[in-house]
Amino acid sequence: DSKLKIFSLNSNYPLAHEIADLMGVELGKSSVKHFSDGEVQISIEESIRGCDVFIVQSTSAPVNEHLMELLIMIDAVKRASARTINVVMPYYGYARQDRKAKAREPITAKLVANLLETAGADRVIVLDLHAPQIQGFFDILIDHLQAVPILSEYFKSKELHSEDVVVVSPDHGGVTRARKMAERLKAPIAIIDKRRPKPNVAEVMNIVGNVEGKICILIDDIIDTAGTITIGANALIEAGAKEVYACCSHPVLSGPAIERIENSAIKELVVTNTIQLSEEKLSPKVKQLSVANLMAEAISRVYENRSVSTLFD
Amino acid sequence: DSKLKIFSLNSNYPLAHEIADLMGVELGKSSVKHFSDGEVQISIEESIRGCDVFIVQSTSAPVNEHLMELLIMIDAVKRASARTINVVMPYYGYARQDRKAKAREPITAKLVANLLETAGADRVIVLDLHAPQIQGFFDILIDHLQAVPILSEYFKSKELHSEDVVVVSPDHGGVTRARKMAERLKAPIAIIDKRRPKPNVAEVMNIVGNVEGKICILIDDIIDTAGTITIGANALIEAGAKEVYACCSHPVLSGPAIERIENSAIKELVVTNTIQLSEEKLSPKVKQLSVANLMAEAISRVYENRSVSTLFD
Ligand SMILES: Nc1ncnc2c1ncn2[C@@H]1O[C@H](COP(=O)(O)O)[C@@H](O)[C@H]1O
Ligand SMILES: Nc1ncnc2c1ncn2[C@@H]1O[C@H](COP(=O)(O)O)[C@@H](O)[C@H]1O
Repeated sequence: DSKLKIFSLNSNYPLAHEIADLMGVELGKSSVKHFSDGEVQISIEESIRGCDVFIVQSTSAPVNEHLMELLIMIDAVKRASARTINVVMPYYGYARQDRKAKAREPITAKLVANLLETAGADRVIVLDLHAPQIQGFFDILIDHLQAVPILSEYFKSKELHSEDVVVVSPDHGGVTRARKMAERLKAPIAIIDKRRPKPNVAEVMNIVGNVEGKICILIDDIIDTAGTITIGANALIEAGAKEVYACCSHPVLSGPAIERIENSAIKELVVTNTIQLSEEKLSPKVKQLSVANLMAEAISRVYENRSVSTLFD
Repeated sequence: DSKLKIFSLNSNYPLAHEIADLMGVELGKSSVKHFSDGEVQISIEESIRGCDVFIVQSTSAPVNEHLMELLIMIDAVKRASARTINVVMPYYGYARQDRKAKAREPITAKLVANLLETAGADRVIVLDLHAPQIQGFFDILIDHLQAVPILSEYFKSKELHSEDVVVVSPDHGGVTRARKMAERLKAPIAIIDKRRPKPNVAEVMNIVGNVEGKICILIDDIIDTAGTITIGANALIEAGAKEVYACCSHPVLSGPAIERIENSAIKELVVTNTIQLSEEKLSPKVKQLSVANLMAEAISRVYENRSVSTLFD
């Protein structure tokens, strides 16, 4: 019988800790530091020979640091004779660079998949990839979890009248996600349709669907600088919405994001803990829900060789 | 006939520029920036279809940033239909993690070799790898240049009396390098032999070879925190050396390095420009020599399919 070991790297120690607690195991002993010149120095401080190893790391900012930590840890785990190496990436950085939008651009999301395989990963567990097609960038097994159920449960617990609720996609790309939440909340959907009438003319926000007098829930996968979501929220209020909530799986929240959210019509921003939020991002408007339970369940099933796919939606 | 293109990333633009100037070409047009969340954003701004592309990047600090820039650039170049992708790495970061010194350590120098190959590099040109065995970590072509001739020429130009000069290796690992310089300077060698008489007792510096009244030239491949080299220099003076120069290929110079050098017996520290030095490292004691000529010659030969190996020593 092989043994389960869960290691945390530096991006999201609280989440890794919560996962281990829920599973009733201790986190594996390892040290992830830097040499004087900034090179990553990793050592694993207990035997993992023959073990099924799970490494928890989000490639959130600083993304290159966190990605290299992960690749070097995979190398160390491989050379320490682990039986399997499973990478748990609650947030998959570089996911937005998933195609050539212009000539001579890289496809970094595919590069990252190749790097993980080259380092020695046997399997990856991810959550809400920016595009589900990124699953196909991997030749190794990949489990693709979703946060929609967690976000939906939270809004259900608010006991909003479902006839008052509309789930809103901030763009055309997010309609599938909005529909999934709408089904769970038994609510209709609306779509914000941005159009630029002529080049160099300001975009016009056209709202497809009825939001007048409604409680709107904007949903996206990533909220980064929060431009789209805050402009969208304000447009919904202008269109007569009663109040606007926003939610997403991955709170990147870079640059002006927090300021924009605080100054916007958004009543509450509901996010998960796939990305650890620094002090200054803990705005009173931001509510963080944990994905630890979902992650722990996925790890248990992989470890026990049971199907993970029933967790996928 | 294929065309030559040289691109620079962000680690050492002045060196790349100097190489291009020497070769009478312009650097390729590209933009290497960051998105708001810190992810690397690269785009190549001219056609490189069918070209032989050379990418100049040292993986010096911040090493993970510079390494990811390089991997993403290789991906972009590959997808832009280049004929060959040649990586010019004057300084190869992570080279000191080249073996398992303890149980359950990674071998990051090998991981980096694999990552470069996976991204799509066809060939790498490096200079003074910490261990020449790292050449064998690559399945693609690798050219291994040396800075000893450049460092030696500089000391020759000082017109020191060769009977007064001793080339000193700061440890046993560096004797081969010291011998190469000694041959060029027609001088003898000495070795600093550090011994710890008992555990937890201070190391004793034992100097093998005659340094009394001599001008000593300490040579190493990397000077990082400068502990070894400054302690060595002071020990040489105590043993009766007249003056002490130090030199190395790669001036990492992290942490207390500059302070230590300034407070040491070292008269001058001679380094190359494989690593770009920030303002605060430009101590009056530090003399920087250029490897641009050597690099330009190597690039020309690779491009023209001529032998590079006659440049190796
Ligand atoms: N980290 C990032 N921050 C902002 N934009 C990005 C980032 N990575 C990629 N992109 C761009 O975002 C676009 C893809 O976003 P989307 O249309 O939402 O799939 C592409 O044009 C990318 O160049
Ligand atoms: N960036 C670094 N800074 C300092 N020491 C390192 C670094 N990378 C690796 N090492 C250690 O340096 C030793 C190898 O140095 P050497 O004996 O000179 O080849 C190994 O024990 C490594 O763990």
